[in-house]
Amino acid sequence: MLVIMKNDATEAQVQAVVREIEALGYQGIPIPGAQRTAVCVVGNKGPVEDSRLLALDGVKETIPVTKPYKLVSRETHPESTIISIGDVKVGGDKPVIMAGPCAVESEEQALTIAHLVKKYGASIFRGGAFKPRTSPYSFQGLGGEGLKILRKVREETGLLVVTEATDHSNIDIVEKYADIIQIGARNMQNYSLLRRAGNASKPILLKRGFAATIDELLMSAEYIMSEGNTQVILCERGIRTFSDNMRNTLDLSAIPSIKEVSHLPIVVDPSHAAGLREYVIPLSKGAIAVGADGLLVEVHHDPLRALSDGMQSLYPKQFEKLMEEIKSLHR
Amino acid sequence: MLVIMKNDATEAQVQAVVREIEALGYQGIPIPGAQRTAVCVVGNKGPVEDSRLLALDGVKETIPVTKPYKLVSRETHPESTIISIGDVKVGGDKPVIMAGPCAVESEEQALTIAHLVKKYGASIFRGGAFKPRTSPYSFQGLGGEGLKILRKVREETGLLVVTEATDHSNIDIVEKYADIIQIGARNMQNYSLLRRAGNASKPILLKRGFAATIDELLMSAEYIMSEGNTQVILCERGIRTFSDNMRNTLDLSAIPSIKEVSHLPIVVDPSHAAGLREYVIPLSKGAIAVGADGLLVEVHHDPLRALSDGMQSLYPKQFEKLMEEIKSLHR
Amino acid sequence: MLVIMKNDATEAQVQAVVREIEALGYQGIPIPGAQRTAVCVVGNKGPVEDSRLLALDGVKETIPVTKPYKLVSRETHPESTIISIGDVKVGGDKPVIMAGPCAVESEEQALTIAHLVKKYGASIFRGGAFKPRTSPYSFQGLGGEGLKILRKVREETGLLVVTEATDHSNIDIVEKYADIIQIGARNMQNYSLLRRAGNASKPILLKRGFAATIDELLMSAEYIMSEGNTQVILCERGIRTFSDNMRNTLDLSAIPSIKEVSHLPIVVDPSHAAGLREYVIPLSKGAIAVGADGLLVEVHHDPLRALSDGMQSLYPKQFEKLMEEIKSLHR
Amino acid sequence: MLVIMKNDATEAQVQAVVREIEALGYQGIPIPGAQRTAVCVVGNKGPVEDSRLLALDGVKETIPVTKPYKLVSRETHPESTIISIGDVKVGGDKPVIMAGPCAVESEEQALTIAHLVKKYGASIFRGGAFKPRTSPYSFQGLGGEGLKILRKVREETGLLVVTEATDHSNIDIVEKYADIIQIGARNMQNYSLLRRAGNASKPILLKRGFAATIDELLMSAEYIMSEGNTQVILCERGIRTFSDNMRNTLDLSAIPSIKEVSHLPIVVDPSHAAGLREYVIPLSKGAIAVGADGLLVEVHHDPLRALSDGMQSLYPKQFEKLMEEIKSLHR
Repeated sequence: MLVIMKNDATEAQVQAVVREIEALGYQGIPIPGAQRTAVCVVGNKGPVEDSRLLALDGVKETIPVTKPYKLVSRETHPESTIISIGDVKVGGDKPVIMAGPCAVESEEQALTIAHLVKKYGASIFRGGAFKPRTSPYSFQGLGGEGLKILRKVREETGLLVVTEATDHSNIDIVEKYADIIQIGARNMQNYSLLRRAGNASKPILLKRGFAATIDELLMSAEYIMSEGNTQVILCERGIRTFSDNMRNTLDLSAIPSIKEVSHLPIVVDPSHAAGLREYVIPLSKGAIAVGADGLLVEVHHDPLRALSDGMQSLYPKQFEKLMEEIKSLHR
Repeated sequence: MLVIMKNDATEAQVQAVVREIEALGYQGIPIPGAQRTAVCVVGNKGPVEDSRLLALDGVKETIPVTKPYKLVSRETHPESTIISIGDVKVGGDKPVIMAGPCAVESEEQALTIAHLVKKYGASIFRGGAFKPRTSPYSFQGLGGEGLKILRKVREETGLLVVTEATDHSNIDIVEKYADIIQIGARNMQNYSLLRRAGNASKPILLKRGFAATIDELLMSAEYIMSEGNTQVILCERGIRTFSDNMRNTLDLSAIPSIKEVSHLPIVVDPSHAAGLREYVIPLSKGAIAVGADGLLVEVHHDPLRALSDGMQSLYPKQFEKLMEEIKSLHR
Repeated sequence: MLVIMKNDATEAQVQAVVREIEALGYQGIPIPGAQRTAVCVVGNKGPVEDSRLLALDGVKETIPVTKPYKLVSRETHPESTIISIGDVKVGGDKPVIMAGPCAVESEEQALTIAHLVKKYGASIFRGGAFKPRTSPYSFQGLGGEGLKILRKVREETGLLVVTEATDHSNIDIVEKYADIIQIGARNMQNYSLLRRAGNASKPILLKRGFAATIDELLMSAEYIMSEGNTQVILCERGIRTFSDNMRNTLDLSAIPSIKEVSHLPIVVDPSHAAGLREYVIPLSKGAIAVGADGLLVEVHHDPLRALSDGMQSLYPKQFEKLMEEIKSLHR
Repeated sequence: MLVIMKNDATEAQVQAVVREIEALGYQGIPIPGAQRTAVCVVGNKGPVEDSRLLALDGVKETIPVTKPYKLVSRETHPESTIISIGDVKVGGDKPVIMAGPCAVESEEQALTIAHLVKKYGASIFRGGAFKPRTSPYSFQGLGGEGLKILRKVREETGLLVVTEATDHSNIDIVEKYADIIQIGARNMQNYSLLRRAGNASKPILLKRGFAATIDELLMSAEYIMSEGNTQVILCERGIRTFSDNMRNTLDLSAIPSIKEVSHLPIVVDPSHAAGLREYVIPLSKGAIAVGADGLLVEVHHDPLRALSDGMQSLYPKQFEKLMEEIKSLHR
């Protein structure tokens, strides 16, 4: 860590910073510059808690050199993590496709879509039983009934199942029924839910918040891993920017950035970023080309009758085309 | 609602949209334009669920004319809401000052600060017992012990107390000890926590998420109100932007925007937006001048020893000055 | 266009809006809603100038249905435009690679790099003679001398040349020497320069501004086309967001969005978005997969000695690898 | 400056960095950390050009400690600059109000508004003769005719005049007619125009770009000052963010941030940020309370007939109210 002093910091203030660094158990080396002095912190084995340093008079800011996460870091775990669930390997050589409707609406709907996406090459079925909705008056999902339908889907099709746990009241039952527990973007910094996920026996799909930096996403994964669950799959799903051509701006630069600093696999959800099905195929291709370990895609056999997100769900024909195009990308 | 058709939409597709609107119970009126057709939805008493319309072939987008919230809206409740807690009126003529440390660290610390902020004119004491922290390795607050200290503060000083409930595991006890229950920015879309807050017997201080629009903040308030708790105080605390001069960009334009569409009171937290104490006084003055109903300010008698957020906590002398400057603004 | 009235708008105010629409030569149809009234504008052949409508009492906002651009629009020109420059076709079946150093530094440097990038498959040489720099104290390019070097590069290698015109004082000479005139991101809304570019005899490479929406980029292209120059190549180069993992956030969603509404070709500059050479290869692959018509990439034979942007310039070996990976994407 | 090495940087790479720093004329001091090494650059009198350092193998990034600007910096000029133009002092004790229409439309319009704003306390008249417009088809201003009207306004009312120079073709004539030359947000990084402004004999009003950081705004002011014109007035006018409640997000935090690092005065334009006249009064009050040196406000005697920006222009009555409210703020 580097402690930057203000321009008018006195020598006594610099010495107070050095003493505080020593009190924290490290060494402080003042580096005088033309305009201001910086103090380097040496001897730390990990991140330095900077709150006391920042509070000292004459201190302008601190600049961390060491990242605050450990377990998610590639520095502590150089090989990329592969998460094996049944026959499926997330983070392996082949991109993993998770596909299905936004929400489970009925057994017939779920099974129809599941058979279709399996036929075209998906290995995991996605579908929400508990839906976080911006409006309290919108359809909130079938709940436990939806989970039972998901179990049926798995039994009939052999597809694995990923579905969202939205809070403490449903994570126990989701853990029981799902193969992968999804933590949604709005819950990315719901720390008690992250801790609970860290105690789950199933892998976690952790979506990046709309306004989360890469470091914050990784810190949230660190919460899960610090409780003992090492099976975390990250998911980029678009961020909030001024750009208004799609619902969110899909940040594909997150893939190489995360791959550089973390060993965890990362998949991309183009459906929620795009908001319109026309854009899902090109964004999916971009995601795979950039190095994503898989996709989370919304597909519906009858988008016109979908209870939510119909406009961003692919028609089965489009999903078939997507799978073909991705295959050729990957050859 | 207006349904915008694509340029190449056929007459049959326009008719299908009209039929779907009628099936929803409203009337659809096609408005042909030079380049494309729009269909106006008439006869609805509130927001129209647009998912089925968006899913129809030939539809480009829908444009809602009616806002999706009801209970928070000034349209249903034209007078500004004043929330009375003891002698304090939030939303009344006088700005309400909530001040105190980021976290309750000890009885001595809390009482020392409470006496100071009371002396200079604060009417509500703020201080965290349960702290949401980005890192699992940071200080997480004193928990239940902190709440007991807050009760002591109230008994000794007569100040009301606001403190954060971070999840379902602590909202019961926070409700018991606090006068106002804070829901933090990271939990603004934690819908199950919002519903629980909607059943609480105490007023809620709801902070705007880093990346939430005004409409989303109001929809989250709607969640609380739809459960029966009408005592909601909104709080602007800075949004995520590209600008790097402060931690977050304080969006003071939110105050007049919210005042226009909602009857709920809104306060401003300049400390978390600024991240540095130097900026707290000017931003506080701006907030009051723009029309905020109060402030949530971090103050510490010994910021150098604060366990969190020391660099953004005002010294008592600075808080005294802040209170004086605000008074003159308000005369 | 739709004119949305305020909730408390009077019938007289609605009628005033209708009359104003009629005065503009169109027809106004009031659509009463449950909470407020909207007035649809019918009969216009293009965008409606809304300033007078917005200024009327009782008007809340206007919602345009028709896009404000014409010449760049796919509606007026359904087939994708292919720009032929010598043997190179921008917007055709094969992505076009424009590669070279940030700045022309010397004849030897330019020729060395040009031979390298030609060998690996680039068809256009990029290199700045006039450099827009954030600091007045930074290297500003070789100017006219640099242009002469670029001419030599073209003569010796047969590569076409793209270079930036930064203002009126150098666009004449750039037009004389370059095969494609680049207008930089900072000049995207320098309207007099755009008009001058619209009178140029060479194709224009127009970069998206850091904070420009897709519509604004297209409006700037419209400026150029409205003067008669129909050869415009758009370029996505990253936008300003809160995300701090790369210098800018490369918005690959811009490619399908632009392809949908405009017939103009679009290329991607991953080097300026990334800011670090490690990320250039994955982002380039993503760009091609998403459908970009080409790339603008920085390459330097000796990045350690580059006078600008050394850290984002590919080594020749990396560029060779990039070209191979793109080829396989495109097969 | 601090040079951060990658985790796996070798000792030889660290030594190469030290040698390069010495070649630049400074001293390099390696600071070994637990995970990686940093090298501090010591002995520089100003900013260090880091491009060669960044290009070295094993270097992850550089962290500048010294700001890149000099002439605009409060470090080189501790007292706040006051710019005197006639009797008006920008940056002095009293906020300076610049008011008038978006565009000069006719002599009658300009004089009517000028008399009104003078009556209520404005000391500078604003009004565009050359208008930068997003669309090539929109009204572009009266040009030289508008400048003559502005001269008449000054002669008749005694108000000073500020108007925009949009490019090299009109800055000469604008310099002749105006008391203050405005450089617009879209031209903030039009460096050749900035250099020309730096040679002007009149003060410059430099508006912050939609997506410019504070440092970039100050670097653009540095361009002007480096040519010899020390009379620069900065202007905050809103930035691009995801927030959609107003046209742009007015960043009032820019005022204290700039005041801390620069001696230049700064005014605020609430009209362009808001986009709607309802919000202009509260944002103006916020701007003054936060410490702005003045306001740039759009006023029109007949907004319904304004040729541009009618919806954000204050009615004369509203401007009168604004001036009264500001006076009370400032007492």
